[in-house]
Amino acid sequence: MTQNRSGLELRSKISSLGTLELFLEEVVVPEPAPDELVIRIEAAPLNPSDIILLLGPADPSAIRQAGTVECPRAIATISPERLVGQKSRLDVALPVGNEGAGVVIKAGPDVQSLIGRTVAARGGGQGMYAQYRVLKAPDCLVLPEGASPRDGASAFINPLTVLGMVETMRREGHKALVHTAAASNVGQMLNRVCLADSIPLVNIVRSQAQTNLLRKMGARHVLDSTSPDFRPALIGALAETGATLAFDAIGGGTMAATILAAMEEVANAGSTTYSRYGSPKIDPDAAKRLRDRVAAELTTTFASHYTAEISLTEALSPDVIAAYSRLATGEKYLIVPNEKAHLSS
Amino acid sequence: MTQNRSGLELRSKISSLGTLELFLEEVVVPEPAPDELVIRIEAAPLNPSDIILLLGPADPSAIRQAGTVECPRAIATISPERLVGQKSRLDVALPVGNEGAGVVIKAGPDVQSLIGRTVAARGGGQGMYAQYRVLKAPDCLVLPEGASPRDGASAFINPLTVLGMVETMRREGHKALVHTAAASNVGQMLNRVCLADSIPLVNIVRSQAQTNLLRKMGARHVLDSTSPDFRPALIGALAETGATLAFDAIGGGTMAATILAAMEEVANAGSTTYSRYGSPKIDPDAAKRLRDRVAAELTTTFASHYTAEISLTEALSPDVIAAYSRLATGEKYLIVPNEKAHLSS
Repeated sequence: MTQNRSGLELRSKISSLGTLELFLEEVVVPEPAPDELVIRIEAAPLNPSDIILLLGPADPSAIRQAGTVECPRAIATISPERLVGQKSRLDVALPVGNEGAGVVIKAGPDVQSLIGRTVAARGGGQGMYAQYRVLKAPDCLVLPEGASPRDGASAFINPLTVLGMVETMRREGHKALVHTAAASNVGQMLNRVCLADSIPLVNIVRSQAQTNLLRKMGARHVLDSTSPDFRPALIGALAETGATLAFDAIGGGTMAATILAAMEEVANAGSTTYSRYGSPKIDPDAAKRLRDRVAAELTTTFASHYTAEISLTEALSPDVIAAYSRLATGEKYLIVPNEKAHLSS
Repeated sequence: MTQNRSGLELRSKISSLGTLELFLEEVVVPEPAPDELVIRIEAAPLNPSDIILLLGPADPSAIRQAGTVECPRAIATISPERLVGQKSRLDVALPVGNEGAGVVIKAGPDVQSLIGRTVAARGGGQGMYAQYRVLKAPDCLVLPEGASPRDGASAFINPLTVLGMVETMRREGHKALVHTAAASNVGQMLNRVCLADSIPLVNIVRSQAQTNLLRKMGARHVLDSTSPDFRPALIGALAETGATLAFDAIGGGTMAATILAAMEEVANAGSTTYSRYGSPKIDPDAAKRLRDRVAAELTTTFASHYTAEISLTEALSPDVIAAYSRLATGEKYLIVPNEKAHLSS
């Protein structure tokens, strides 16, 4: 019986005392199960999410070299307050690397035909920053002949994120998209897919340089959120494209609220009657069912309570205006147009 | 031929010189068309949207009395910079009042049977702060016998807003709701509907008093956004209810982003494999179609470009870590686990 080969795997570990350690571990490559492939990993990208897992809350500038030339290590000290939220990973040597690609060098009896093929894969719980990985064949993407591991290294996360956005748009009945972080790798890929599939796309970026980059790719709607006319430009682009779905790749802050408010403004502008009540879509039968329920439950579920009743004349009185314009939670006034003054009587 | 009756209607006008005027106008009530009703309006609520239309950008505390006892007016001066955005209404005497209820006192030949009935209606372009309104019968909600105009005054806007939220939830396949401004009139009504229909509801309020009010109504999830543990409490409530749809009745600020981030965190926590890539749902056929497209367009649509290739050892070097952890837009590093050091060679 021959000894199984071994290979290096990258590990990230944060100790409960607050030390981050990055190191390489030598691991014996297990025998593949009947449906498994042994892949020699040739290329694996450092995606932002990988870097978050790799470095944890450590300050990148605080990382220093340790270990030996044969056995290198990188370490950093993490202050106790930054350890909050890391509990689930403390003292565990985590594998890292969400995706990658390589060549099949050995395979279980059911999948022998894949030996020698180049495949891309997601690491799952295992981590692709490793010299060898054993993975189930159905979880791998067999690349076309001629495609290299470098071509396929990023075949999962960004492409499926982009196609997932487009698929979500179609399934939920939208006809155009908004994307923040539009100049990122994902953003550029989304532009190529949308151009190929004739999907209107509103790109939101954060600088003139990013605007130029996307324009050069052929993007039609590119909005710089640092520009003073960002909001009217956004409303114009939403009106022209009809976009009612947005992916905010950045998160936090007020961008989500800004986009939602602009979409609502466009939806209202498109309605034929003046309404500040948004843009519901409902068929006549469903509308009748809702109205019937309101009528039946008028004095129970849908009862309203009023702070005071006022006449038309009282509605013009400065004191009364000051009262009803406060819009205090739970307060509401009722105009009774065919009655005489109430409050002063 | 008898003279038609006349009635008072409230008007709001902003002059291009910057004066807001509120006044009552005496208007002759027209003859109803065959399908129209003449309604004597008995009750009409002052909803927030009505107040916005009524006062425009005027400061409520700046409103002063004018006119005479018989012909009262309220006026206010609006500074030029606050007139921006009001262009479409300048020098037009607008009717006000989005909804109301009253008694049918006259009807066209096709709808004679409704004379004497109490009906609720939306003002549309006409305004319900008026003594009489002529409206199409199909646009009115005939109230059950015994219901008063006061019972029906607010039958449209708040009830249909609430039922619209629940209907949207069902149609889009969600199973629970989040609502901000949960202690408002609409919020309380939504609580009654959700309790009646056994729909899990996450209420977000802004004070302890509002929390108490909703708890007394039987609300199970009430979160005070001013509380220091709001975020973990929100995540807990989202996890327990499975809410993936939120209505933000306030808008602006960071609440929308906070709710979206919490929903994503809950969705990821519920997945069985570790992933920072969100929570897409897709069937195997569709997934295969997407993967096939990625494989076919690997070096075109889905091509990635890398700033540099690094070995596993280089991935542990402080200088290289500083470079790849910058996460600059458009920069991405590729690990090549089976090659020797690249950058230093």
